[in-house]
Amino acid sequence: MKIIKGGITAPKGFLASAKSCGIKRSGHNDLALLYSEEPCLCAATFTTNKIRSGSVVLTEKYVKKGIAQAVVVNSGSANCCVGKVELQDALNITGATAKKLGLKKGNVLIASTGIIGRPLSVNKIKRRLGLLVKDLEKNGGTKFAKAIMTTDTVHKDIAVEIKIGSKGVRIAGTVKGAGMICPNMATMLAFFTTDAVVEKSALKAAFRDAVGNSFNKITVDGDMSTNDSAVIFANGLAANAAIKSGSAGYSRFLNALRFVATELARKMILDAEGATKFIEIKVKGARSERQADIVARHVANSNLVKTMIAGGDPNWGRVAASAGSSGIDIKQGKVSIYLGGILVMKCGARANVSRKTLSGIFKKKQIFIVIDLGSGRALSKIWTCDLTKEYVNINAEYET
Amino acid sequence: MKIIKGGITAPKGFLASAKSCGIKRSGHNDLALLYSEEPCLCAATFTTNKIRSGSVVLTEKYVKKGIAQAVVVNSGSANCCVGKVELQDALNITGATAKKLGLKKGNVLIASTGIIGRPLSVNKIKRRLGLLVKDLEKNGGTKFAKAIMTTDTVHKDIAVEIKIGSKGVRIAGTVKGAGMICPNMATMLAFFTTDAVVEKSALKAAFRDAVGNSFNKITVDGDMSTNDSAVIFANGLAANAAIKSGSAGYSRFLNALRFVATELARKMILDAEGATKFIEIKVKGARSERQADIVARHVANSNLVKTMIAGGDPNWGRVAASAGSSGIDIKQGKVSIYLGGILVMKCGARANVSRKTLSGIFKKKQIFIVIDLGSGRALSKIWTCDLTKEYVNINAEYET
Repeated sequence: MKIIKGGITAPKGFLASAKSCGIKRSGHNDLALLYSEEPCLCAATFTTNKIRSGSVVLTEKYVKKGIAQAVVVNSGSANCCVGKVELQDALNITGATAKKLGLKKGNVLIASTGIIGRPLSVNKIKRRLGLLVKDLEKNGGTKFAKAIMTTDTVHKDIAVEIKIGSKGVRIAGTVKGAGMICPNMATMLAFFTTDAVVEKSALKAAFRDAVGNSFNKITVDGDMSTNDSAVIFANGLAANAAIKSGSAGYSRFLNALRFVATELARKMILDAEGATKFIEIKVKGARSERQADIVARHVANSNLVKTMIAGGDPNWGRVAASAGSSGIDIKQGKVSIYLGGILVMKCGARANVSRKTLSGIFKKKQIFIVIDLGSGRALSKIWTCDLTKEYVNINAEYET
Repeated sequence: MKIIKGGITAPKGFLASAKSCGIKRSGHNDLALLYSEEPCLCAATFTTNKIRSGSVVLTEKYVKKGIAQAVVVNSGSANCCVGKVELQDALNITGATAKKLGLKKGNVLIASTGIIGRPLSVNKIKRRLGLLVKDLEKNGGTKFAKAIMTTDTVHKDIAVEIKIGSKGVRIAGTVKGAGMICPNMATMLAFFTTDAVVEKSALKAAFRDAVGNSFNKITVDGDMSTNDSAVIFANGLAANAAIKSGSAGYSRFLNALRFVATELARKMILDAEGATKFIEIKVKGARSERQADIVARHVANSNLVKTMIAGGDPNWGRVAASAGSSGIDIKQGKVSIYLGGILVMKCGARANVSRKTLSGIFKKKQIFIVIDLGSGRALSKIWTCDLTKEYVNINAEYET
């Protein structure tokens, strides 16, 4: 597998473009289009929030067919909590985009991100669709990645190439989201493209696996958006022998897709609001992966743990207290904790470590915390970031 | 019911004292003793954290007998995560205190609060016990309340008097805890005293009810201490006709106890680390109280909601998004949200409110948020505070 340039338009047959239609007051691009020259198999996952955007509702419906060829994305407005007009607006915009592209209307998906409670500027968007379609280009991947940003400080994309038989197959992705969080501009939006020929069930399984082991393993503060969406488009233009579940080709495809998703998840944490540290919470020795996951997630969402790391103070009791209050029945006498590889709590009691040994441990950019429950063989890893005054700044002053 | 002076020594027969034994570097009092001239019925609730202090383990064991006459409390060290010595130290200190008081050793309880992972300074504590017993006094309530503080900025106590038949009965309480949170100095410790004659089962039921509707309804950041304890002592010196479950006297007793506990809970939120606002999240229209409680707690723990209020920005979409992601199956089209009594979201869509109308809403000291799920008749209220830069400051710089 090698990393290649070009972002989501690196795979064969994908084009993209972006424009400013006037939703973002800054004048930055806020409308983006991704298009494949051939119809694509597609798979997707969406937020499980019970309050959700009309854009999510419509795209979920369209994706159920399993075929799509384009996605139109706006940033600046979430198209959420504005009532029945949400769905009408989403239908209106996807319909108009499909017409300009000469596609059936159900083959254009939509995603929105931004303020909740403000209607979409449908006319502003529609006025830009002609130009958006006209300017679709092979080099448009980065433009697309930039236009979907909200509080993100950098655009996030990556593309790789693998061999399936004698054919080069490309897999790419882009994501926006300054952590899982992001205030009203809540929302993680992720788009993946591939030119692989891949059977529908294999595509779905690989995508579920890759998302589950990347985006679903990060947290900034446990808040979940009304608009989170991740979609993959596979247009088959690499002309490889079809990838089937369980084959050697599937393993290679899955590994590459996992790599792309994991890199995007890592980029999101590194760009999380106000964050200065990348933190991995690994819980091992659990009776089940689910239990390990609950403990790791609880610690990763602890404001006390996250402020401790922001402050650089190796106050490991906070990790112990958080692990103990996750609701999982752990045995204090079996629990050990490591900060940056150094044992600080052994079987429920402090280990013999000098304060000096620990003093530099949170000065690193990447912090590794391991909690060994001593009760089984299952493990889980969650990524998060520190909680800084800058996070409070960004989120206290967001909308106005 | 009237509010009276004196804190936890206001009820007949209770004495208290406090000393500095040298655990707190500041030289402030860090050792406190509460004593009843007569043996007391007692009831208690403790942290459900699986990592817990040896002081909690021992006191829980002693309280099971249902009789106690004193509690010795240290602040500055949690007596947690130091190994088997925790329980030995707790036994040692309670034994020595009982001896000085001329009591059976099982009749003296212990509570600790402070840094996790540092052993108790047993010798320092024992050296002060003689003086602590000698200086027990009727006016010692406030001294006791001050000595158990850690990051608290004010001491918190209250006492009331009610009539049971012709007899005056007093109920009092004190609590420490700068919110539920407080870093390593984690821990809420609450002590209640009453001179009521009350049947054991009635005391237990009333205490469980009062704690459940006060301390268990507040949250600062969802972190739970290793040492949280709440204990009530009833010495019977008011000589009233015994309070039995279901009687009119029980209702009056319960109401007074609820008032005391609720006031202490409110004082804790108002003194929460870095907090500038008192926030009530009320969820109504739920199918069950449990569901209402889960939604309210989820919103109350949302950093996005709490930073929004700190910033004064009426960005109600964050409340909607948080309510929707609590895991409870709410129906978007039935959910309405009120900020400070103003309807901002009606049946899932924004209400017609001007930005101007909302602009002053978070300037008040007390913020009321109501979420009507529109699906039933159950409700729950949770109290919390805003999340400020000062919270991050306090918790980033705590230990060292």
